Amino acid sequence: MTFNDRLNQICLKKNSLVCVGLDVDLTKIPNFILNKKEPLLYFSQAIIDATIDHSSAYKINTAFFEACGTKGWEAMTKIAASLPDHVIKIADAKRSDIGNTSKMYARAFFQEMNFDAMTVNPYLGYDAIAPFLDDPEKGIFILCHTSNKGAEDFQKFSDGKKALYEQVAEQSQKWNVNNNCGLVVGATYPDEMKKVRSLVPELPFLVPGLGAQGGDFKLAIQYATNERGLGALFNFSRGIIYSTNAENFAEAAGEQAKQIKEDIIRINKDR
Amino acid sequence: MTFNDRLNQICLKKNSLVCVGLDVDLTKIPNFILNKKEPLLYFSQAIIDATIDHSSAYKINTAFFEACGTKGWEAMTKIAASLPDHVIKIADAKRSDIGNTSKMYARAFFQEMNFDAMTVNPYLGYDAIAPFLDDPEKGIFILCHTSNKGAEDFQKFSDGKKALYEQVAEQSQKWNVNNNCGLVVGATYPDEMKKVRSLVPELPFLVPGLGAQGGDFKLAIQYATNERGLGALFNFSRGIIYSTNAENFAEAAGEQAKQIKEDIIRINKDR
Repeated sequence: MTFNDRLNQICLKKNSLVCVGLDVDLTKIPNFILNKKEPLLYFSQAIIDATIDHSSAYKINTAFFEACGTKGWEAMTKIAASLPDHVIKIADAKRSDIGNTSKMYARAFFQEMNFDAMTVNPYLGYDAIAPFLDDPEKGIFILCHTSNKGAEDFQKFSDGKKALYEQVAEQSQKWNVNNNCGLVVGATYPDEMKKVRSLVPELPFLVPGLGAQGGDFKLAIQYATNERGLGALFNFSRGIIYSTNAENFAEAAGEQAKQIKEDIIRINKDR
Repeated sequence: MTFNDRLNQICLKKNSLVCVGLDVDLTKIPNFILNKKEPLLYFSQAIIDATIDHSSAYKINTAFFEACGTKGWEAMTKIAASLPDHVIKIADAKRSDIGNTSKMYARAFFQEMNFDAMTVNPYLGYDAIAPFLDDPEKGIFILCHTSNKGAEDFQKFSDGKKALYEQVAEQSQKWNVNNNCGLVVGATYPDEMKKVRSLVPELPFLVPGLGAQGGDFKLAIQYATNERGLGALFNFSRGIIYSTNAENFAEAAGEQAKQIKEDIIRINKDR
């Protein structure tokens, strides 16, 4: 089954468009966990166990693990391996390089760690992206319009007819021959999100920028989802995993994930 | 001392603009090394020992180490730690993400592994790049015009007056307040390299695309260096480290690095 089909199937089956972002920061997790042998792994697995009934995907932010050195990379590998097949495993790695190097990144994330998908930066163009698209079962989300302020610096660069992010969206549509290509479109720019959805009705969106970054939830759901109420994963990192610093941190994260899942269902119905 | 000043100082002292690229691929290194306990480390250290008199910098291509899993990350960490202070240590990581995530990447490469510099992707704009520029002693090379064919897909996207890569160059100049910002400019596009040099006379270039990728050596030296014959590092990966598969692979790499160093000096004098 192609990645995009599997993504839809899982979201339908779990009735959830929630993606839990594992931006695991040792300075933010409950203090008592720091005494555990493998704190990154302990915290992540507790969060996963508590949220898995409400989430269709997990997004591991590679930076937070790399910041912990070899132990961090090892923890990331173990966390990826521990995730079950009924959720989508995304490496938020934002990689890309010339072809023979992108092949190595694809090997690292798709083969060594068996992620289902990863985020990819478009700046180097098609031959840098192609190695990630070879296997129809593995998907990518290409950065199109990101959620940060700096998105305006280059993504809005325009040829007079369209902006760079629109050009990236249109090219990505062409590169979706294996039905395994999607886009990162931040919730903090609803007008641009609406524009991108109109350009590429078929491509799934990975949507950051909700929660801590302050994106509008209703608009994001309205603009990111497709006519079937699918086609988008809404990522929450800090907003779910750091719900509380108390001993019941995992339970609280689970409650939060459930609440967000239900909010999305409700808004999706009403629109 | 700022990164850009230190780069110049080292290149002057070693009389070399050579950067050795460690794209270490287990399928390409001499067979007998695969029996060693830590083949990535063994091969890299032998190459470093043999080339260090002729090189001002080493560029570790993170993808090749990530493709080997946790062992690869560990090897990369050890290789970075083993490089002496009289060369520049560059992580060719092509990272960038929203601010709080870029901070984590900066911590991973500048603090955990003590690299002097890293390559950074500009697509997410200033706030994604800023965390890498905080420490004047640590430098970045922002992808401007890359060496691959796909560079034409988005980097040439134009507003009618200038192309995106020119806009990236001009913005990077503004971001060089700590004198620690440079650009990646591929040798396979000499006209664009000439253009970028005219836009940013001060910024150091990291130049890929020579050797295996076929860039013109004379034009690259002519266009990338500044009036003092400095301001550029010419990277050679496959062209140096895989000089031969025989037992004397390191010696051959050293010879090759010496030859290239001398070729650059000669061309630099004649221009």
